Amino acid sequence: TVNGQDLWQDLVTTAAFGGTEKGGICRLALTHEDRQVRAWFEQTCKALGCTVTYDSMGNQFARRAGTRNDLPPIMMGSHLDTQVTGGRFDGILGVLGGIAVLRALHAADISTDHPLEVVNWTNEEGARFAPPMLASGVFGGAFTEEFAGSRADTNGVTLRHELEQGGFVGQEQCGQHPASAYFELHIEQGPVLEAEERTIGIVTGVQGMRWYEVIVRGRSAHAGTTPMPMRKDALLAAARMIEQVNAVALAHAPEGLSTIGIITALPASSNVVPREVRFTVDLRNPSESILQVMEEDFLQRMQNCAEANDVQVDIVPTWNSPAVHFDPRCIDSVKTSAEDFGYTMREIVSGAGHDAVYVSRVVPTAMIFVPCLHGISHNEAESATPEDVTAGSNVLLHAVLKADKI
Amino acid sequence: TVNGQDLWQDLVTTAAFGGTEKGGICRLALTHEDRQVRAWFEQTCKALGCTVTYDSMGNQFARRAGTRNDLPPIMMGSHLDTQVTGGRFDGILGVLGGIAVLRALHAADISTDHPLEVVNWTNEEGARFAPPMLASGVFGGAFTEEFAGSRADTNGVTLRHELEQGGFVGQEQCGQHPASAYFELHIEQGPVLEAEERTIGIVTGVQGMRWYEVIVRGRSAHAGTTPMPMRKDALLAAARMIEQVNAVALAHAPEGLSTIGIITALPASSNVVPREVRFTVDLRNPSESILQVMEEDFLQRMQNCAEANDVQVDIVPTWNSPAVHFDPRCIDSVKTSAEDFGYTMREIVSGAGHDAVYVSRVVPTAMIFVPCLHGISHNEAESATPEDVTAGSNVLLHAVLKADKI
Ligand SMILES: NC(=O)NCCC(=O)O
Ligand SMILES: NC(=O)NCCC(=O)O
Repeated sequence: TVNGQDLWQDLVTTAAFGGTEKGGICRLALTHEDRQVRAWFEQTCKALGCTVTYDSMGNQFARRAGTRNDLPPIMMGSHLDTQVTGGRFDGILGVLGGIAVLRALHAADISTDHPLEVVNWTNEEGARFAPPMLASGVFGGAFTEEFAGSRADTNGVTLRHELEQGGFVGQEQCGQHPASAYFELHIEQGPVLEAEERTIGIVTGVQGMRWYEVIVRGRSAHAGTTPMPMRKDALLAAARMIEQVNAVALAHAPEGLSTIGIITALPASSNVVPREVRFTVDLRNPSESILQVMEEDFLQRMQNCAEANDVQVDIVPTWNSPAVHFDPRCIDSVKTSAEDFGYTMREIVSGAGHDAVYVSRVVPTAMIFVPCLHGISHNEAESATPEDVTAGSNVLLHAVLKADKI
Repeated sequence: TVNGQDLWQDLVTTAAFGGTEKGGICRLALTHEDRQVRAWFEQTCKALGCTVTYDSMGNQFARRAGTRNDLPPIMMGSHLDTQVTGGRFDGILGVLGGIAVLRALHAADISTDHPLEVVNWTNEEGARFAPPMLASGVFGGAFTEEFAGSRADTNGVTLRHELEQGGFVGQEQCGQHPASAYFELHIEQGPVLEAEERTIGIVTGVQGMRWYEVIVRGRSAHAGTTPMPMRKDALLAAARMIEQVNAVALAHAPEGLSTIGIITALPASSNVVPREVRFTVDLRNPSESILQVMEEDFLQRMQNCAEANDVQVDIVPTWNSPAVHFDPRCIDSVKTSAEDFGYTMREIVSGAGHDAVYVSRVVPTAMIFVPCLHGISHNEAESATPEDVTAGSNVLLHAVLKADKI
């Protein structure tokens, strides 16, 4: 078993990098705070006897040698970046859980056949550089390195620039790294495990998710002199579209989800009727075919709404991550590992995207979920218990050891 | 009569300061572009023999001496700042019209008893420093100089700082400047004169206007894992509030107006349900008592909407400019001047706020409107004809001469 106290101490230590007043974390990818936690990760792993390398997307690989170093490594990991107002477990738990596994093996003086690696995937959240899972996406062949490097934050700074500034560009071409299996430990970020009082989620796959940018064009006009019937108010039209985006999810309840996270209106003056509104749309469903129906429903509703409100609408798809089904053998390793400890468990489909989504395209992959308080995530109030995160790391340890013997 | 060609040439010349690709103007108060047009104004007036002074709010006064300089001056003017995507007539016409009057008197070698002044009021639009009519508001006693100076733009830069940087702080305390009358020429910014094919609007007053900031607080949550019924989506609630704000105007049609010009959502990440949305509300009505009813209706609807959507709402009043009735004698001077030329005309209540609103609290005031294309303003497509702007300046000239004889 892993040492739960050390693991918890690591969670506390790393929470200082970008820690917020409200007890959350603001550690956007490749910012000063992210560089701090990356340095901590590198030093901590080196102190455990690992070698640390980078690939060309700045993904960090901390490697503990095996007895047969010709075998491709078994990887564990997740990400160290967070949302703007993120929590203390999302992502980092999968990395620190990997470190806890290495420590446990070290303490018990156990050698594995395969080398073991703990990986920190760059820019998982997509909060600074959209879309999410960008560097693991390059690793899995979903994005080209050129596309990923060209992604810019709201100030126009590119991911490529920040990788170079930070000295994070390694020799190895991203995606050329061999691996025999990948296990990612993560908080559920949803309410299911907590509600059913189960400790471990055996993640069988990840739902499909699609992103769009909606651009509504009306006509700017003076707030004090333009009669209501003469307006082409892009914001009023957008408000009605937001209602319709919500209706798309409700029409496919309970699985269907829709979210609008970002909205801007121009020219952004109190006494000017907005001429242009832009907002993001995030649609999700575990079923790829229902997600397709949701998309068509969404597009139709936006068109209808634009016509009814005498505005123009353009809809640009910005991300499409199809539903994923993880590797049966890896899933089984997770399941039997949870059984080893007698943990309560259930199979579960992830609502959130994870680096495992793209890694699974090229490496046999599974995930382990542990509960989080009230299912709250992407929120500074995100919380999980020491017992649950330790249990998850124990399952990670055994799953890795089982994979080592396959 | 004024020289319409010179006037039009001045409109063309000044349109270069902040001119946009789409033929509009972006000349926010006290920016580089505004400093340019202020310098042009000063030089042009000095070339006409005026002395130019500033008061403590950076208001510019260009003075042509009268035969009895003990009399308080008759003022003409408006503002040189614009909206972010503003037009080529809003504001500047009232200043250039004043210059056209001085030129006409010069050319005809006419002296007035009263000194005449052309005034450029600082930051009328409120697009950079809210609320609008800030410096004329200090002049009229509506705002303290401290309040006005402390207003900051979206980068946190204050009006006071920009006045000092530009060297626009004059010796004279704002509001201490004596005046015997004030006439402001402006485009209507609405559709009435054009629709009725009238050249001159005799502006009898300005409708009441009230601004608010609405802050909606929900709970941030993960877009992929949070079931729709468990969300407290601040943006969905705000969208429903926007619909209700629109309904407030419709309930008081056709005079009642409501506008939402600015909206922001936090934490502004595509895969996070927004926890906080802020938007501005602008309510207007020519009747102060109906405007009061609109306000109560608005507040009630926001509360109902917040309750129905399980979010919190706070509403902060940010500006209140009561309905204004101009000086009967000044109105009459405008009317008889329009009659002098045989222009078609009508009385009209201004839908937009103007510097005249606050100046009228301390100086007998009236305004002159001319038509603008399709009533479009606060828009780069804003347009007016050379004939109409010349006609308006002719009325301004005669109104000033009549006031001089009172
Ligand atoms: N785990 C996680 O929050 N990833 C972000 C990608 C998503 O939006 O699901
Ligand atoms: N004239 C003008 O556009 N002034 C701005 C103040 C208002 O919102 O009415």
